[in-house]
Formats: sequence, C-alpha cells, structure tokens
Amino acid sequence: MSEQKRPLIFVTNDDGITAPGISALVDAMLPLGNVWIIAPDKAQSGMGHAVTFSTILRLKPFKYGRGVQGAWACSGTPVDCVKLGIAEVLHRKPDLLVSGINHGSNASINVIYSGTMSAAVEGAVESIPSIGFSLMDEDWDADFEAAGAVAGKMAAQVLEHGLPEGTCLNVNIPKGRPADVGDIKICRQAMGYWKDAFDSRQSPSGAPYYWMRGEIYNPDKGADTDMAALDAGNISVVPIHYDMTAHHAIGQLNQWDL
Amino acid sequence: MSEQKRPLIFVTNDDGITAPGISALVDAMLPLGNVWIIAPDKAQSGMGHAVTFSTILRLKPFKYGRGVQGAWACSGTPVDCVKLGIAEVLHRKPDLLVSGINHGSNASINVIYSGTMSAAVEGAVESIPSIGFSLMDEDWDADFEAAGAVAGKMAAQVLEHGLPEGTCLNVNIPKGRPADVGDIKICRQAMGYWKDAFDSRQSPSGAPYYWMRGEIYNPDKGADTDMAALDAGNISVVPIHYDMTAHHAIGQLNQWDL
Repeated sequence: MSEQKRPLIFVTNDDGITAPGISALVDAMLPLGNVWIIAPDKAQSGMGHAVTFSTILRLKPFKYGRGVQGAWACSGTPVDCVKLGIAEVLHRKPDLLVSGINHGSNASINVIYSGTMSAAVEGAVESIPSIGFSLMDEDWDADFEAAGAVAGKMAAQVLEHGLPEGTCLNVNIPKGRPADVGDIKICRQAMGYWKDAFDSRQSPSGAPYYWMRGEIYNPDKGADTDMAALDAGNISVVPIHYDMTAHHAIGQLNQWDL
Repeated sequence: MSEQKRPLIFVTNDDGITAPGISALVDAMLPLGNVWIIAPDKAQSGMGHAVTFSTILRLKPFKYGRGVQGAWACSGTPVDCVKLGIAEVLHRKPDLLVSGINHGSNASINVIYSGTMSAAVEGAVESIPSIGFSLMDEDWDADFEAAGAVAGKMAAQVLEHGLPEGTCLNVNIPKGRPADVGDIKICRQAMGYWKDAFDSRQSPSGAPYYWMRGEIYNPDKGADTDMAALDAGNISVVPIHYDMTAHHAIGQLNQWDL
C-alpha cells in the first residue's frame, strides 16, 4: 500500500494521552494506516459531550514515537480534541476516528456520560466513520491485549464497509486474556441507569463537600442488549446515532391542547 | 390546592443560579407548585452530559426569596445538580424538573452539547417528567416574558399528562414579545451540525492558543423539524430520549464478517 493510499486514522480518548489504553489502541491502528493522535492532556472521564467555548484551548506537541505521524496533547475535552484536531492539526477529515481504549465500561447508559463515546459521536456528527472502544476493567495497568485485537479487527471492518451516515460504534470488551473473550455481538443499548449515592464529608476547616459514587442498575433484561452480551462474556457492538428525537412520542404529544 | 398536594418542582439551568433566564423560569413555576432551585454556581454552558466523579462537589445555600422553598448553588455541572439535588437536598424525586430558560438556542444538534438539555435528559433517565427551555436570544438582558409564558403553559401540560417513559422535552422559543411568538409545534430534531472554526492567537508571552467559534449549518429542510418551526416564528417542542441506539443500522452490521 503506498503512503498516499494509507487511511488517515485519528486516535483520541478521554483518559488522557499518557493512558495505557490509548497506547494499546495506537498499536492496533498502526498496521492499518497513518496514525495521528490528538488527545486530552489530562483525564477527561465523564465529560460527556462537553465543548469549550467560554475559555481558551491549547495544543502542545507530544513525543509519541513508534511510527505515529504526529501527536498533540489538547487542554480540552474529548470533543474539543476532535474539533480542534481536524481544524488545526489535520486540516482535513480523517478516514477513521477511534477513541479509547477506555479504562472501564461504556455500555448501557454510560454512553451519555462518556468522553470516549462523545468523541466518537462527534466524529459521526462530522460524517467520519468513528468507533469508541472500552475495556471492562478500570485498572490503569489493565491487560489490553484482547481489546487491542478487537479494535484492530473492528477498525479494519469499518475501513472496508464504512458506517451508515450519522452513526458510530460503541464497542465494549470484557476483561480477560484473548482466548477467554467471546464473540462479537451487534446489540442495542440496555436501558440501565445509575443509582446515585453521595459520600458527605467535611474538609479540615469544616466545609461540607460530596463525592459522587453509585452503581449501575439494569432492569432491561433483553437478550439483544449490550449488557446481556457482556454478561455472557461476549463483545458488544452498539450502533449509536445523535438523533435524540423520541419519534414514537410525537403522535402522543400532538394530542395535547397546546 | 393544599400545600401537601402542590407538585414539587426542581428548577435548574446551565447559565448559573444568578442568570435572568432561571429567574424567569422560577416566576413561571411558582403558581404551579413548590419550587426548589439547585443550579450551578457559575456558567456551565456547553457542558453536555458531563458528570463530576473525579473531584469533589459542593452545595451552598443561596438566598432566592420570592416564595421559593429552598435554593442551593452547586459547584458542578447541570447533571451534577440533578443528581446531588435529588440525593442530598430533596431526598425524593420531584414531580417535575425544569431547566433553563437558556440564554440561546438548543435546537437541532445543540441538544447534545447543551448543559440545559442534559439536565432534562438526566431527569428522563431518572423517570422524572422533565423539560428544557431555551430562548433564541443569547443576551444576558434578553426579554424572557414570552418564554416564561410558554414555560408555564408547557409545565402545566406536563404536570397534567406526564411524559412517555424515558422522554423529556426540548422547548425552544423565538425571540420577541408575547404577541409576536407563534404556535407550539411538536417537531423532530433537525439534522444540523456546527461548521467549526478556531481563532488562533498568541498570549503576551508568545504561547499559542485557540478560541472555538463556528456557525450552525442545517442541510435538513424537513418541515417537521425544530429548525423549520423556529424559522417560521413558532415554538419548537421535540421529545428527546436517551436511547442512542441506531436501531436501523443493526441489520446492516449483522451482515459483516465478525
């Protein structure tokens, strides 16, 4: 494959440019194309689709090596990285945008809180074939070998087939060695949610503050959900789009006296 | 109506607890129920569905007066306000959650970037009837009279009818005096997007930085969209849900060799 014909692959994440997860993703992408990294300069987990327009953004070159074409650390959110990377680093849309590999699950409702997935959704908004990858292991030193192999396989498929207009993929990979990880299942998002709780504490000077915690609860037992696939040890792939319209509710609302 | 039977109404926003828009929303809600305010202590525009779990959150009492039951300024995002307000202030789910009135449009793709709408979406995730209101005027001193009247009318309808499970409403109101504002139209989200641009500048010491700007572009000319309703001077109401699955793409992906 000549250098000109190699796909341009944009790699980002939400755990920051120094995270082991993005390193595993870069390794998986290098055989597939010319890799550029524009990723947050610090952890940006839980940033959702936040964008920075009320303050300034910075880009700093980052020595990544390993055959990467260029790497930049951005002071903003994952979505900022996508917007600023395209406009000011690549000066063109990439052929593929990949985000991750996240340290922790982005299945079910996590898709709306996730910086990893919001970067992929922003790619979809900009008509770029985009995938977010997440490993079901929050450890910084998690074993990314199986997830990296899945990322390489899925990226090759997306480069070959493209994706339906306005969609991206939310890929979650179970924890485990490559031999232990099951099949790839196309799923829908499970309708789970977080049961929130807060730890109430006091600072040394007596000022109250809170830590958010909680646990995910999934009453949606559908066999076609991402949570069901993951519970069975399989890899979940959910096509995601950014049309948030509840189309099924329009008829009902039209009966109101407005 | 006895005090016991008056609905409990949770008011929040993303422009901060001191914004004129939330004041107009409070005025519109006071005749309808017992109003509690838990809103950001500073502007949180563009925060999307960001949540704060990597650092601490604070709540400070805020003197609002005017018959409000209680008001608290929260150090976090609009979604944090919803979660923390329910868990640590109200200790129950409200009967209605309203967010806004935003200073500026949240039509079309803005729904995914908007802190105002993310608070309403978080309400929907928690099975609370929820509405986000936005005025098509970014001025701090905008005229909220028409938008306030729309907010009161829509809130009364939602208190009467409820909303389909897992949905909230994205209500956008054109700029203008009450007599100039058109009809309420139930719509779908227009498939527009932002054409991004960045101003590249240098700090006094020579360090480069960027300001995000850009303009929304809407190739979606459907007469049933929020943008079409607003362009015609009407009020757009889009039912929004948090199932981001692109259900129509599942069949196509199942044909891949995975």
